[in-house]
Amino acid sequence: MVPRYSRPEMTAIWSPEARFRIWFEIEAHATEALAELGVVPKSAAKALWDWWATKPVIDVAAIDAIEAVTRHDVIAFLTWVAEQVGDEARFMHQGMTSSDVLDTCLAVQLARAADILIADLDQLLEILKRRAFEHKLTPTIGRSHGIHAEPVTFGLKLAEAYAEFKRNRARLVAARADIATCAISGAVGTFANIDPRVEAHVAEKLGLAIEPVSTQVIPRDRHAMFFATLGVIASSIERLATEIRHLQRTEVLEAEEYFSPGQKGSSAMPHKRNPVLTENLTGLARMVRSATIPAMENVALWHERDISHSSVERYIGPDATITLDFALARLSGVMDKLLVYPARMQKNLDRMGGLVHSQRVLLALTQAGVSREDSYRLVQRNAMKVWESDGALSLLELLKADPEVTAALSVEELEDKFDLGYHFQQVDTIFDRVFA
Amino acid sequence: MVPRYSRPEMTAIWSPEARFRIWFEIEAHATEALAELGVVPKSAAKALWDWWATKPVIDVAAIDAIEAVTRHDVIAFLTWVAEQVGDEARFMHQGMTSSDVLDTCLAVQLARAADILIADLDQLLEILKRRAFEHKLTPTIGRSHGIHAEPVTFGLKLAEAYAEFKRNRARLVAARADIATCAISGAVGTFANIDPRVEAHVAEKLGLAIEPVSTQVIPRDRHAMFFATLGVIASSIERLATEIRHLQRTEVLEAEEYFSPGQKGSSAMPHKRNPVLTENLTGLARMVRSATIPAMENVALWHERDISHSSVERYIGPDATITLDFALARLSGVMDKLLVYPARMQKNLDRMGGLVHSQRVLLALTQAGVSREDSYRLVQRNAMKVWESDGALSLLELLKADPEVTAALSVEELEDKFDLGYHFQQVDTIFDRVFA
Amino acid sequence: MVPRYSRPEMTAIWSPEARFRIWFEIEAHATEALAELGVVPKSAAKALWDWWATKPVIDVAAIDAIEAVTRHDVIAFLTWVAEQVGDEARFMHQGMTSSDVLDTCLAVQLARAADILIADLDQLLEILKRRAFEHKLTPTIGRSHGIHAEPVTFGLKLAEAYAEFKRNRARLVAARADIATCAISGAVGTFANIDPRVEAHVAEKLGLAIEPVSTQVIPRDRHAMFFATLGVIASSIERLATEIRHLQRTEVLEAEEYFSPGQKGSSAMPHKRNPVLTENLTGLARMVRSATIPAMENVALWHERDISHSSVERYIGPDATITLDFALARLSGVMDKLLVYPARMQKNLDRMGGLVHSQRVLLALTQAGVSREDSYRLVQRNAMKVWESDGALSLLELLKADPEVTAALSVEELEDKFDLGYHFQQVDTIFDRVFA
Amino acid sequence: MVPRYSRPEMTAIWSPEARFRIWFEIEAHATEALAELGVVPKSAAKALWDWWATKPVIDVAAIDAIEAVTRHDVIAFLTWVAEQVGDEARFMHQGMTSSDVLDTCLAVQLARAADILIADLDQLLEILKRRAFEHKLTPTIGRSHGIHAEPVTFGLKLAEAYAEFKRNRARLVAARADIATCAISGAVGTFANIDPRVEAHVAEKLGLAIEPVSTQVIPRDRHAMFFATLGVIASSIERLATEIRHLQRTEVLEAEEYFSPGQKGSSAMPHKRNPVLTENLTGLARMVRSATIPAMENVALWHERDISHSSVERYIGPDATITLDFALARLSGVMDKLLVYPARMQKNLDRMGGLVHSQRVLLALTQAGVSREDSYRLVQRNAMKVWESDGALSLLELLKADPEVTAALSVEELEDKFDLGYHFQQVDTIFDRVFA
Repeated sequence: MVPRYSRPEMTAIWSPEARFRIWFEIEAHATEALAELGVVPKSAAKALWDWWATKPVIDVAAIDAIEAVTRHDVIAFLTWVAEQVGDEARFMHQGMTSSDVLDTCLAVQLARAADILIADLDQLLEILKRRAFEHKLTPTIGRSHGIHAEPVTFGLKLAEAYAEFKRNRARLVAARADIATCAISGAVGTFANIDPRVEAHVAEKLGLAIEPVSTQVIPRDRHAMFFATLGVIASSIERLATEIRHLQRTEVLEAEEYFSPGQKGSSAMPHKRNPVLTENLTGLARMVRSATIPAMENVALWHERDISHSSVERYIGPDATITLDFALARLSGVMDKLLVYPARMQKNLDRMGGLVHSQRVLLALTQAGVSREDSYRLVQRNAMKVWESDGALSLLELLKADPEVTAALSVEELEDKFDLGYHFQQVDTIFDRVFA
Repeated sequence: MVPRYSRPEMTAIWSPEARFRIWFEIEAHATEALAELGVVPKSAAKALWDWWATKPVIDVAAIDAIEAVTRHDVIAFLTWVAEQVGDEARFMHQGMTSSDVLDTCLAVQLARAADILIADLDQLLEILKRRAFEHKLTPTIGRSHGIHAEPVTFGLKLAEAYAEFKRNRARLVAARADIATCAISGAVGTFANIDPRVEAHVAEKLGLAIEPVSTQVIPRDRHAMFFATLGVIASSIERLATEIRHLQRTEVLEAEEYFSPGQKGSSAMPHKRNPVLTENLTGLARMVRSATIPAMENVALWHERDISHSSVERYIGPDATITLDFALARLSGVMDKLLVYPARMQKNLDRMGGLVHSQRVLLALTQAGVSREDSYRLVQRNAMKVWESDGALSLLELLKADPEVTAALSVEELEDKFDLGYHFQQVDTIFDRVFA
Repeated sequence: MVPRYSRPEMTAIWSPEARFRIWFEIEAHATEALAELGVVPKSAAKALWDWWATKPVIDVAAIDAIEAVTRHDVIAFLTWVAEQVGDEARFMHQGMTSSDVLDTCLAVQLARAADILIADLDQLLEILKRRAFEHKLTPTIGRSHGIHAEPVTFGLKLAEAYAEFKRNRARLVAARADIATCAISGAVGTFANIDPRVEAHVAEKLGLAIEPVSTQVIPRDRHAMFFATLGVIASSIERLATEIRHLQRTEVLEAEEYFSPGQKGSSAMPHKRNPVLTENLTGLARMVRSATIPAMENVALWHERDISHSSVERYIGPDATITLDFALARLSGVMDKLLVYPARMQKNLDRMGGLVHSQRVLLALTQAGVSREDSYRLVQRNAMKVWESDGALSLLELLKADPEVTAALSVEELEDKFDLGYHFQQVDTIFDRVFA
Repeated sequence: MVPRYSRPEMTAIWSPEARFRIWFEIEAHATEALAELGVVPKSAAKALWDWWATKPVIDVAAIDAIEAVTRHDVIAFLTWVAEQVGDEARFMHQGMTSSDVLDTCLAVQLARAADILIADLDQLLEILKRRAFEHKLTPTIGRSHGIHAEPVTFGLKLAEAYAEFKRNRARLVAARADIATCAISGAVGTFANIDPRVEAHVAEKLGLAIEPVSTQVIPRDRHAMFFATLGVIASSIERLATEIRHLQRTEVLEAEEYFSPGQKGSSAMPHKRNPVLTENLTGLARMVRSATIPAMENVALWHERDISHSSVERYIGPDATITLDFALARLSGVMDKLLVYPARMQKNLDRMGGLVHSQRVLLALTQAGVSREDSYRLVQRNAMKVWESDGALSLLELLKADPEVTAALSVEELEDKFDLGYHFQQVDTIFDRVFA
C-alpha cells in the first residue's frame, strides 16, 4: 500500500483492527449458533455479545505480542478475547479451524471492498454520462492508427467509455458474488466437529453465501477470478487515461486535465501543463493488473490446503483494491473536470484538407457505377496530393478538377459528400443503445 | 500452436479456410441486409449466396498471393471472391471497414471455441461426478501443509473439483456472452455509411449480440475478460493435476494415472510409472495463463483503434483455446481412468498412530470441563510421543495411560473418539450441496 | 509459432529434423567418448559416424510412428537410429538418461537462437548508428509527458535507442552463456553410470560449458534468465516502436514508416498511411514478454525433476525466439527506411511561440540576481499568455515588453536565450559516450 | 510493503527521510561541481555542506505540506531546504531538472538495496555450503516426477542449490551495475544548461557510473532488467522452498523446518508441524516475480519521458527489494537450522525393495551381451513384481531366481549392482566443480 495512492475508507477495511472486528463477529455468530444447537451454553454467546456491546477498543499491540509467542494469529486473538471476556470465552471457536475465521473474514473484506469499487464505478458512470451528453454532438476527428480517419463526436468517445465501464460494473458484481462465501467447516472441511447449520447462520448474518464444499479453505479460484476482474477494470482505466494523454499532447490539445492555480508543471519549464494524473493512472493500472498472475498461481494449493496463498493475499488484497479505488476516484475527478476544447477539435478536423471525407467519395463513385478498383484509384491519387501538401490543398477542389471523377459525380454531388453532419446521423441510435 | 497439444475440432476453427468462410458469411449477410434496405441490388446478395451454394473450395494460397501485393488481408479476400462471383460482387463490403469483418469473425471464432470448451467442461464434470459418487465414502487422509490432518473421503476431493469446474463453467458462459458481439459500424463506428440494421441482421444470423458502441473495433476489454477466464480455468486444472501428482508420489501412491501396457516410463529405470500427464497439464496451465496479461495489455488501444492487438490475438486466440481444449480433454481422460487405491489410502490413514483423531480428543476434553489451554497441553504431549515414534506408538493407548486425561474421559469415551465414521456424517450434506 | 511472424533461419532451429540431428550428434559424441574410455567398442562410435557421413535423411514420420507406441521420444529416436545403423548402435546412450539428450539439445538450440538474435541486434545497431549520425544535428522538439519541452536532435533520439540496444546485446550475450551448458550426468545427475569425461567431451564438441551440477535436468533458473532477457529486449522494441508511432501521428508527422507503392492503408480511407509495422511490433513485444512468467514458473521443479517445464518450452522456445527474431528484423527494416521529415520537425519546434526556451530565460534571470521564485513567476506569466494563444504570440516579444524582465536582462541577452544551437553544444560529447 | 515481511535495514532505504537525504547529497554535490566550474559561487556549495554538517533532522511533514500546495515533490524539497539554508540555496538545482534528482536517487536506492541482497545471498551461500559438506555423503533417494529414481546424497541437493544461488549472485551483481547510473543532464538530456562534468562529479561521489545518454530520465530497460533478475532469484527461492515442503510431508519426512518450543502448528491439531516458513516463501516468490511485468511495461515511456513509471516504482521499488531481502533471510534461517533425518532417508531409500538399482542391472545385462530390448524386458518384468508388492519383494532376490537373468549375470555380479556406494563415486568431482 502506497499512502499517496490510497483513500481512507478502503484502507480502513484492511486495518488490523477492522480484521479483528470481523473475526470477533464470525466467532460470536458461530458461538450463537452453537448455543442454539445446544453444543455450548447460551451464556457463552451472551457473554461475547455483552462484551461487544461495550464497544471495546481492539488492542492490536496486545494481540501482536501474544502472536509473537504463539506464532499463530487466531490463537493469539482468541487468547486476548478470552482475557477480556472471561471464562465463558472457552466455548468460542468450538469445532472450528483458523481458516474458518480467516477465509470468511477475507470474504467479508473483499465484499466490502467490492462495494466501494462498485460505488466508484457508479460515480464514474454518472460523470461519463453527463459529459457524454454534454458533448454528444461536439465534432472531433476519429483516429485509427493515430492517423485521422473520419469524424466522430467527443460524446461518442465518452459513450464508449461509459459502455466499457458499465460492462466492468457487471463483471465486478459477478466477481463479488464469486468471493462472498462463508466457510465454517472445520479442519478439513468435513463438518466433523461442527454442524453445517453454524456455517449457514454465520453466512446469513454476514451477508454471505455458504461455501458448498470447502477443504479447510475457501477454494482460490474464486479469488483468482476476483483479482483478474480488477485487472480488466484497470486495463479499461489505462485505455481512457491513454486517450486523455493523447488528447493533451501539444500538437493535439483537444482536451486537458484540469490545471489548478497553485500547480507547477515542471521545475524547469514553467509553461508546461502535463497530463500527470492520467500518466499516473497508466502506471497504477499496471500495478492492479500485476495482481492477476499471483492470484492465479494461488489456486493450486496442495491437497486440502497449504498456506502459500496467505502472504500473496496480504499484499494484493489491500494493494489491488486500494489502488483501484484510488484510480477510479482519480479518473472520475479527471473526467469530471476535464477541460474540453471544441474549437481545437474543429481546427484539427479541418487540417487535412478534407481527406476525412475520402471514403464517402469512394462510395459515391462506386454507387455511380465506377468499379471498386477504379474508384479507389481515383480517390487515392487526389488524396495523396492533399496528404503531401500537409493539408494546404483541398481534396474537394482537386476532385472537382479531376475529369475522371466529374465524369461520374457532379460538383453538387461532390460537395454533398463533404458535409460533416452526415457522419452524426446515427449518434442518437448509439446513445439510445448505450444509455437506455 | 503445438501440434501435440491440439485436437482437430478446435484447431479447425483457427484454420485460414475457416476464417475465410466466416468472412464470406459476414459479407454475404451484410449484402443481403443492404439489399433489403435498397442500398444495393438484391441480385448482388443472390449472386453471393448462389456461388456459396456451390460449396466452393476456398483457395487460401490464391488469397495469400493477392495479399502479398496489396498487403491487406480483407482487400485480398474481397478481390478473390470478386474473381469467383463476378461483377455483382462489387456491392459487397459497401460502407463497411475491414474491422467489421475481422472483429465479427473473431467473435464467431471465440464463441465457437467457447462452445467446445463448455462441452469439454461438461464431459469433465460428468466424469468427476461419477468418480465422486464411486468414492463417496472411500476414506483417505486429509492433508494441510502436506501434513496429515483429519480423515476425508476421496469422493469429497472429487466433489470439490466438481464444484470448482462447475464455477468455471458458469464463468466461461459469461465470458462467451462477453465476446459474442457483432460490429458492422464502419470506419470509426458511427454508421455514417452503413445502416445499423445491417449490423442487427448479421448479428442475428450469426447468433451474436450487437455491439452497442464500437470504434472501428470491438472493445478489447471483452477479450481481456475472456482470456482471463481461460486463465482461471487453467489454474483449476493445475490444482487438480497437482493433486494427482502428489497422490502418485512413491511414498503416497494413493492413485495413479492409467498406465498402458506399451508405455515406457523411463529409458533408464524400467519400473517407473510417472504422472507425466498431470505434470504436462501443470505446464499447459502455465501457458494458458500466460495469455492473460497480453490480452489485458491489448485493451488500451489508441483513440478509435490501433492494430497492436492483432498480432497478439494471432497467437493467443488459437494457442489459449487449443491448449485449454487439449488440457481439459486430457484431464478428463486422466480422471476417467484414474487408478484409485483405497487400501493404500487406509494404510496411510493408519500410519500416524491415530494422531488424526487428536482434535476430537481435544474437543472432548474441553467439553468435559478441562480448560482449552490444558486440553491442548494434554493432547500435545501425547501426540508428540506418537509423532516422534513415526507412528509406532498409538495415541489411543498413550491417552488411556495418561492419568490427567483419564481423569476427564473414560476409556470408552476415548475409544469413541477414534471412530472413523464420525468424520463422514456430513458427506451426504456436502454432496447434496454440490450435486443437487 | 505464427508463420507470418517468422523467418526461415530461426524457424529451422526448431524443426523436428534439426532437433533429431542435434540428438544424434550428442549421442555420437558421447559414444565416441565412451569408446575412448574403453566402456564401449570403438567400432560403435565409428559405425555411428560412418552412417552420419552418408548424410542420411531423418525420417521424422517414422520416428513419430515409433513414439506413438513407446510414448517416449528419445527411445523412439534411438530405436530408429538402431534400425539404420545396425547392431553396433546398441552401445549408444550407455549410462545416459533422456534428459541428457533433451536438455543438452535445448541448450544447443537456444545458443544458436541467441546467435541469430545477436546478429539481429548487430544489424539493428549498425542501422541505428548510421541514421543517428545522419540526423546528429537535425533539430526536433524534445517532449516530456507528450508536451513540448526543449529542443533535442533526432540523432540524439537514435543514439538513445542505440545505447539501449547495445545494453540489450550485452545482456543477451550473458544470457546465452547462462543457457549454453551441457549435462550428460545420468538418471539423477550423479554420473553413477557415466564418466564425467563423456560430458566434458560432448560439451567441447558442441561449444557448450559443462553443467557443474545437474539433477537429471539442467536447472531452469538458466532458462528463466534467458527468457526474461528476451522480454527486456522486447520491451525496448516496444519503446522504439511507440516512438515511431507517435512521430507518425497526423498532427506530428515528423517521421513515417516507408510506404511502398502497392500498399493500401485502409480498405475505406485510401489516403491513410498507418504505422502498421510499429503497431505490430508493439503487439509482438507483448508476446515475447509473456514468456517470462511461465519460464520463471518452470524453475521450481519437484525434487530432481518433474516434466512440467517441457510443454511450456515447446511453446516458448520457438515462439519467443522466432517472434523476437522477426521483430528485430522488422524493426531494422523500419529504421533503415524510415522517412524523416526535418522541415516538419522544425515547424513543430516553432509552433509554440518560443516556449521551449523558457528555462534558459529562467536561468538567466536567476543568474542576473532575481530570486528563483520571482524568476519562475516572471517567466510563467508570459509563458501562459503564449500557451493560451496556441503559439500565436511570441515569448521573446512578450518578455521584451515586460519591464520586470527587462529590468534584469537586456534585449540582446534575451535574444541570445532563444538560440537553438545553444541546446546542441553537447551533442558531440554524448555521441562520443555512446558510439566511442 | 507488508511489515511482517520486512526487515529494518532494507526498509530504511525506502523511507522518505532516506530519500530526502540522497536528494540533498545529489544537489549539494552538483552545486559543488557547479561552483568548481564557476557557474555558481563557491559559497553556495559551502553553505549547503555547512548546514549538512549540523546533521539536520529532515522534516518530512513540512516538506509534504509544501508539496500539498505545489504538487511537485522536488520543488517542495528545494523550497524547504532553502528555508533552512538561506539565500545561498538559490544556486541549488541550477540547470537541473527534477528527474536528475529523482532518477539518480532511485539508482542509489536500488544499488544499496542490491548490496543488501548480495550480502543476503552471501549468507545463504555460506549456509548452503556448510550444510552441503555436512551431508555430502548422506544417502537419500533421488526422485524424478515424484517417483523414486536412483540414490543421491542430501549434500548433492544442497550443492545444486548452492550453484543456483551462486549464479543468482552473479546475475544480481550484473543487474546492480545495470541500474547504478547517474543522470544530471537537464530537461531533455542535452546538457544544454548544465555541464556534463557536473554529472561526472556527482556520479563519482555517489559511486555510480554516468548514464551515457539520458532523456530527462534514465532509460527503464535498466530497471526492467533489475526487477526481472529479482524475479529469477525469487523463482530459485521457490524451488528450494518447494523441496523442503516435499521433504517435510508426513509420508516422506526426511527433513523439517526447525520447530521452536513455544510454537503451535494448528489451533485444532496439536501434533502438526507444518512447513509454514517454506510455504510462506513460495507465496513471497510469487510476489517478487509479479514485479517483472510492470517493470517491463515501464520501458516504453513516451518520447523523452512520461511519468507512468513513477507510480509503479513507488510500489515495486520497496516491495520487491524488501520482500526479497526478507525471503532470502528467511530461507537462510530455514536452511541453517533445518532438521535433517538421515535414518528416515535410508528407510525411504530401502522401501522400494531395491528398484532403485534397476538401471545398473539393465546396463550390466547389456554389457554382458544381452540386447538392449531384452535387457529392458528382463528388468522390467521383475521390477513390476516388486512395484506391485509395494516393496515387500526384493528385486535382487527375484533377479537371482530368474534363469534368463542368471544366464547372463552371476549371483556375485548381481549383488555387486546393489551397492549404494557405487552411486556416490563422483560426488567429490561434483563438489569440486561447485565449490572450488
